[in-house]
Amino acid sequence: MLEKVRTPDDVKKLNINELNVLCKDIRERIIDVTSRTGGHLAPSLGVVELTVALLKIFDPLKNPIVWDVGHQSYAYKILTERNKRFETLRQYGGISGFNNIYESKYDTFGVGHSSTSISAALGIYIGKELNKSPEKVVVVIGDGAMTAGEAFEGLNNTGGLNKNLIIILNDNTMSISKNVGGMHHYLANILTGKRYNKLKKEVWDAVQALPKIVRNKIVTGVRRLEESILNMVIPNSLFEDLGFKYIGPIDGHNIPTLVRILSNVKQHVEVPCLVHIITKKGKGYNFAEQDATKFHGVSAFNNETGELNKTKAKRSIPTYSQYFGKILTKLAEEDEKIVAITPAMTDGTGLREFRDRFPKRCFDVGIAEQHAVTFAAGLTIEGIKPFVAIYSTFLQRAYDQIIHDVALQNLPVRFAIDRSGLVGEDGPTHHGAFDLSYLRCIPNMTIMAPRDGEELKKMLKFMAGYKKGPIAVRYPRGTIHNYPELHNSRIYYGKPEIVFDGGEIAIITIGSVFKIGYEVYNQLKAKGIDSYLINARFSKPVDSELLQNLYDNRVKFIATIEENAIKGGFGSGILEQANELGLKFRIKMFGIPDKFINHGKISKLHNLIGLEPKNILNIIFNEYAKSN
Amino acid sequence: MLEKVRTPDDVKKLNINELNVLCKDIRERIIDVTSRTGGHLAPSLGVVELTVALLKIFDPLKNPIVWDVGHQSYAYKILTERNKRFETLRQYGGISGFNNIYESKYDTFGVGHSSTSISAALGIYIGKELNKSPEKVVVVIGDGAMTAGEAFEGLNNTGGLNKNLIIILNDNTMSISKNVGGMHHYLANILTGKRYNKLKKEVWDAVQALPKIVRNKIVTGVRRLEESILNMVIPNSLFEDLGFKYIGPIDGHNIPTLVRILSNVKQHVEVPCLVHIITKKGKGYNFAEQDATKFHGVSAFNNETGELNKTKAKRSIPTYSQYFGKILTKLAEEDEKIVAITPAMTDGTGLREFRDRFPKRCFDVGIAEQHAVTFAAGLTIEGIKPFVAIYSTFLQRAYDQIIHDVALQNLPVRFAIDRSGLVGEDGPTHHGAFDLSYLRCIPNMTIMAPRDGEELKKMLKFMAGYKKGPIAVRYPRGTIHNYPELHNSRIYYGKPEIVFDGGEIAIITIGSVFKIGYEVYNQLKAKGIDSYLINARFSKPVDSELLQNLYDNRVKFIATIEENAIKGGFGSGILEQANELGLKFRIKMFGIPDKFINHGKISKLHNLIGLEPKNILNIIFNEYAKSN
Repeated sequence: MLEKVRTPDDVKKLNINELNVLCKDIRERIIDVTSRTGGHLAPSLGVVELTVALLKIFDPLKNPIVWDVGHQSYAYKILTERNKRFETLRQYGGISGFNNIYESKYDTFGVGHSSTSISAALGIYIGKELNKSPEKVVVVIGDGAMTAGEAFEGLNNTGGLNKNLIIILNDNTMSISKNVGGMHHYLANILTGKRYNKLKKEVWDAVQALPKIVRNKIVTGVRRLEESILNMVIPNSLFEDLGFKYIGPIDGHNIPTLVRILSNVKQHVEVPCLVHIITKKGKGYNFAEQDATKFHGVSAFNNETGELNKTKAKRSIPTYSQYFGKILTKLAEEDEKIVAITPAMTDGTGLREFRDRFPKRCFDVGIAEQHAVTFAAGLTIEGIKPFVAIYSTFLQRAYDQIIHDVALQNLPVRFAIDRSGLVGEDGPTHHGAFDLSYLRCIPNMTIMAPRDGEELKKMLKFMAGYKKGPIAVRYPRGTIHNYPELHNSRIYYGKPEIVFDGGEIAIITIGSVFKIGYEVYNQLKAKGIDSYLINARFSKPVDSELLQNLYDNRVKFIATIEENAIKGGFGSGILEQANELGLKFRIKMFGIPDKFINHGKISKLHNLIGLEPKNILNIIFNEYAKSN
Repeated sequence: MLEKVRTPDDVKKLNINELNVLCKDIRERIIDVTSRTGGHLAPSLGVVELTVALLKIFDPLKNPIVWDVGHQSYAYKILTERNKRFETLRQYGGISGFNNIYESKYDTFGVGHSSTSISAALGIYIGKELNKSPEKVVVVIGDGAMTAGEAFEGLNNTGGLNKNLIIILNDNTMSISKNVGGMHHYLANILTGKRYNKLKKEVWDAVQALPKIVRNKIVTGVRRLEESILNMVIPNSLFEDLGFKYIGPIDGHNIPTLVRILSNVKQHVEVPCLVHIITKKGKGYNFAEQDATKFHGVSAFNNETGELNKTKAKRSIPTYSQYFGKILTKLAEEDEKIVAITPAMTDGTGLREFRDRFPKRCFDVGIAEQHAVTFAAGLTIEGIKPFVAIYSTFLQRAYDQIIHDVALQNLPVRFAIDRSGLVGEDGPTHHGAFDLSYLRCIPNMTIMAPRDGEELKKMLKFMAGYKKGPIAVRYPRGTIHNYPELHNSRIYYGKPEIVFDGGEIAIITIGSVFKIGYEVYNQLKAKGIDSYLINARFSKPVDSELLQNLYDNRVKFIATIEENAIKGGFGSGILEQANELGLKFRIKMFGIPDKFINHGKISKLHNLIGLEPKNILNIIFNEYAKSN
């Protein structure tokens, strides 16, 4: 069936039976491709019927469909002229794992971070209205994404303006981690609420049948009460309070029901409405239904067994995230003041062990980065030592809270910034390209990055003992790399590790790109050039003494290496400090150039931006020769 | 009465009549002091009774009281050992206009930006719990602040965890601008909801009295219905849905009621609860009651007449905000695609005229900066030209949206960044110290700043016509300054204005601190030293050609002047570019040093950080001599 369907128009021609067959085909296609490419399997399997029903009823070029986060949009991609290219999912040059306005006219708005969809859709809707061609705009948002502040801001504004958005709440009772918070309880209550609705109907039917002799006051009163109650279907009032018509809950895997309701909503509902559908994450693929967290975002796997393709050897080396979780758990065993906070990323940030060991000291606050940071600030007021584990790209959402609630008050919140630098296949919405820049301008902030796993361990220990103010450690996606041949010295505040002394060239690295610097050092050495190899450890503060010593020891050329935007980043800090001290080095900075970097294998991306030994060596030879 | 009261303990000793007298005294004190110092008069007058009642019942050293924003905390400051120092409100070295942990042990958590209080209080509460000394924590938050995403995140997490916070919703039916959004309608409905509650009670009383002969099914059914309905008091369900016990609405100016209810809540309520009180902004001062927006944050005024003390002459020069609003209105008359967006700052950003002229093209989205920016991104999808008018310090809250929703998609959202640089008396929570740094690392972003009012006009026109990507203009608080003696040339993308050619020194300024650069230029000239005076206009991109030309013309020394953090800011960009080009200037950067700057008059603060001609001249002489 899928072979007959290339565009949404093709979907419209199918009858219900054919749509059901189509769903089966799409599932197979998604499972087949992601088993090879990896990807967001479980979320996408959960909305196959919804996607088909949406395209049966709506023309997305007329009524844009904004997918929140976009990790559930694989079926949508397949049905909007991207089935052929779906093979290239998440590969360099191939299609993105999220909706992307550069990729297709059907992707009206690009996504990747959670909870932006309602705001964007309201903008699109009002834009159409101002252009005098009003059309309904559809949003598909998960129950997890609904806990984030921006989603609420969008609901509040849409309800207040009474604009005609169709918000489909895709409720699979979980986000990436198990869902938490008042909103979650509320949604769960709606399901039990069905019972009350049924009961209510029975009672009112009976009341209507009461003989007229019953006291007048009761009859009048009950009628008026009835009116309020009918306007107030138990317990969906939260959304209605905000100005939405609530429709649901609806079985999100039943095509006829979905088609009927979406058709009604499209034709007859003229106010903002929220359609609450219930789906199962991973639907139709047994392994994913059983463990939706594992199959939320998955690497390549065996289609038949559900086993991940990673070799045993690879699995035995922990990722930075796993190692972080392990070390933090150990530290927490020794220090009962240590707690962990994660905004819906217990597994992603490696905190599962910590949570199991210390359930009362691990706070999954839901997708709520702003709250996570201010909450941590509050904890420090009472002498608690919170570690906020968060992906670099998502920490952007708590920027104001870092400045205003943490740094301004100089509170010792510990930030464990995961997925810093390039993350590979998830692409530009998920690269952690900016944290060294956006944190560096904040007073009172200390920023570290470890060269390897052992140093991460030392830094976490250092952070646990550091009480003077906010402190952050950033580390990348992927497995840790250690250097058994190198001694790793004790951490002193603000001080780098001088790994090798050298001549006129100094290579200064921050974080795990030490590996690149080490290689450059070795290759220079092989050519008879002695250079300094320095692991900065601290991106802020910059060590003036180091720079002065290098200068006094006749270093002329400094190469800084970081996996962060060059603008305003680590190298920029070195340059500023050297300038401040009046030290006339020739400084060359290597890092992420001033553009957004697409998705693809990390090694490919490093090659693309010249963040690799070969390019750095070329430039050092070139520039160093120039400066001599 | 106020003379007898120095600490919260003194409040506890007073009876209801004495508390009422105390309120009168506090009001007089607040009006008297703010009439001289300026300040947030109307919000503080609205919560005098609440503050007194809170201190009658709670000991804030045991049960911390977290004031959201803190602009309503004057009575609290007066009653917590700060009455004497209250004279120094907002003056340099004096007490802050917001709660500040450096100022008093009674200020448990510092505030200034909206909607952080619930998150912070939850952290403090859980901290106490982990320390095995659980105590209730009180939050006072306005209805305006309740529309921000972080407040919702805080409610959601608190309700989900079922923690025992007491959240007092101070509902004055307005924030700074008139309140908007679904939440506002909802709160308004609660007031009408009182009627339903009363009716419901009557009906149920009657139902109870029904004779037993009435059909059995009805009786059973109605009882069970009653149960649901009693759990679902009309229409306060929004907060109950999120897990809170709702109490209210309550007259927030009635001391006996407040004391009774707070006492009950303190002693008997063991779940998160929300106490909804109704207050009047500006209460007890006629002029402020009549125009709460004018008296929200006010400069010095005549106590008797309510007239602001500004001289007529001063008033005739518009502020940057007013001028922005005026110009944007003009541009919007010529171009119907132009719309304005403000997060609850219609007056503050000068948009009142625009709103009155184009009510359908002006969007006050409530305190919802994240939503404002993504909403703007959505509008651009439909070819609309949104200008997002926002204070620099509040734009921090939309940082992720700027990167992820706007810049990554290269959408032409126009940012009008008001209150950039130091804002004076509002202090560190309100200084716009970081925008040049945090925006500079974002790819696709263009950042401008005008030297004066006329240039702001040109830049706004330029922005209206610029469609290639996001573009920002930043301008300061205060009145515009023009330079009739200087010609102001046309704006070319990325190009500076070379105001004067010179010798070996170049002064490069960005924005309104051109004034300082001009003075430095003149004083150098008076000493026979010709320097370049350059108005950069663009902070990003940096003009390589300019730097190369200066170098080729034998400039040796560059002084950059900006009212932004030096780290990663405008000067840092010049330095990076010069380094990239291999141009060996001696560069000295003037701006905001790497610390938070306290409140006080702007001139005083400039003096404090050396951002003034005298200091800059000294350093130029000193350094320039060194480099020769």
